[in-house]
Amino acid sequence: MKLSFTKMQGAGNDYVYINGFDYKLDAKQAEQLAIQLADRHFGIGGDGLVIIDPVEGADARMRMYNADGSEGRMCGNAIRCVAKYIVDAKIAEKETLLIDTLSGTKTIVMNSVTPVESIATVDMGPASFALPEIPVSSNEDQWIAHPFETSQGTFPITTLSMGNPHGVLFMEEIESLHLPSLGPIFELHPAFPERINTEFVVVHSPTEISMRVWERGSGETLACGTGACAAVAAAVVTGHCKPESWITVHLLGGDLDIYYSEETIYMRGPATTVFTGEIEVNI
Amino acid sequence: MKLSFTKMQGAGNDYVYINGFDYKLDAKQAEQLAIQLADRHFGIGGDGLVIIDPVEGADARMRMYNADGSEGRMCGNAIRCVAKYIVDAKIAEKETLLIDTLSGTKTIVMNSVTPVESIATVDMGPASFALPEIPVSSNEDQWIAHPFETSQGTFPITTLSMGNPHGVLFMEEIESLHLPSLGPIFELHPAFPERINTEFVVVHSPTEISMRVWERGSGETLACGTGACAAVAAAVVTGHCKPESWITVHLLGGDLDIYYSEETIYMRGPATTVFTGEIEVNI
Repeated sequence: MKLSFTKMQGAGNDYVYINGFDYKLDAKQAEQLAIQLADRHFGIGGDGLVIIDPVEGADARMRMYNADGSEGRMCGNAIRCVAKYIVDAKIAEKETLLIDTLSGTKTIVMNSVTPVESIATVDMGPASFALPEIPVSSNEDQWIAHPFETSQGTFPITTLSMGNPHGVLFMEEIESLHLPSLGPIFELHPAFPERINTEFVVVHSPTEISMRVWERGSGETLACGTGACAAVAAAVVTGHCKPESWITVHLLGGDLDIYYSEETIYMRGPATTVFTGEIEVNI
Repeated sequence: MKLSFTKMQGAGNDYVYINGFDYKLDAKQAEQLAIQLADRHFGIGGDGLVIIDPVEGADARMRMYNADGSEGRMCGNAIRCVAKYIVDAKIAEKETLLIDTLSGTKTIVMNSVTPVESIATVDMGPASFALPEIPVSSNEDQWIAHPFETSQGTFPITTLSMGNPHGVLFMEEIESLHLPSLGPIFELHPAFPERINTEFVVVHSPTEISMRVWERGSGETLACGTGACAAVAAAVVTGHCKPESWITVHLLGGDLDIYYSEETIYMRGPATTVFTGEIEVNI
């Protein structure tokens, strides 16, 4: 059958988006499609597949599948694209949207809407620094700039959960870092039983930082929404940045603005329609 | 403006194809579009851009641009896709097509035509083993299984030109090779003033080989049409394979069939339409 799709990206996180109001796709079909469509040479190409379904009690539900067909829980850069999609497709014509994910129902506010690029703010929920929730194997309560011993030396690390585990490292510079050798030291360390995403951060000012991210299972990526939130949360609790103000985070794939408070973290950033198309698939 | 395009691939060489009968694109516009559209995260994604133009004396002209905007001369995997495109679009409704390239006018025969995948045979022209034509800096006439000294040991190399320079190495196995460290030894060796594409080849039988390729300027790629021709030409002149018979070449991106004779080399392989789409561009 011929399948219509939209390719969208947010801060360089790019997914293939399919309208589940038009196509009913079960989990098995979605998994197969993700593997086929995410392939960058033989398919459409992307970090994975997002299906936008009708749902009771929210404006839409997003189901996301990684390029290997595994299901993801939530992606802050993808959910902005879902919000843009449902506004552009007139599935919901309002400013504040509720979108269901495997990590719960999220609130997204559309800040600006244009045909190609819209700006949206996502309520990402609070950060949790409690070690068992991340999880980190340790008898301590929190690791805030904790001297962490590795085979490559001791690094002051701040760990937290944004629904997924993060370790944040502040450095003098990050451009010259070789992440394929540095990232796995943290990702695979026995202190992190579910592995960990690691953010390498430079603080430029109390309202501006740059980061690179090593994602568990994926390696270095252009952007990570929860990683940007984690970097700002860690920057605030270590005194580098200010709470309750917008902090710009420069990532390889673009900029995100993050607002940290103890109650919740907001992420504001672009959602871009790259192209639309049709592809022949066997489902 | 909104630009219609087709994404096609042949043995894993994937390009964005634009109908130059509909859009008049000058070299500057094509260069800009190639950079924008070939980007795999922020554009459509591909090895580059191919524009199919009207031309006097042939069925079409192909202009190809690499992902960095530089113009390419010819690509055996792309020209099969151009042939499929002009047949599907009814630009030329016949079995034998003439397509202009920067390397001259090529003849392509359509072996089978289906909406998704067609099979086409390209007359790739003859191989040249004369060292000045490749070029190789040496006083000898030819290098056929020539003991070539490198920092990593001595390799028997066969060099030839298919319009571009190739060095072919026959090995016991190629799966475990680490091409990022092996490829540059040949690519950057002073014996090759215009650098060189290197094929690492295993011979399974007189009619079947496998290869991996390190392309100058690109690194390891899924497939290289002239590289497959070069591998078979070298396999024939070193006695591994038979002349004037079809030899199957397994590449990472798929299979190609190559027919070698002294007069010319034929390459037969698939051309696949992956998807069609529309993208907003500023040109």
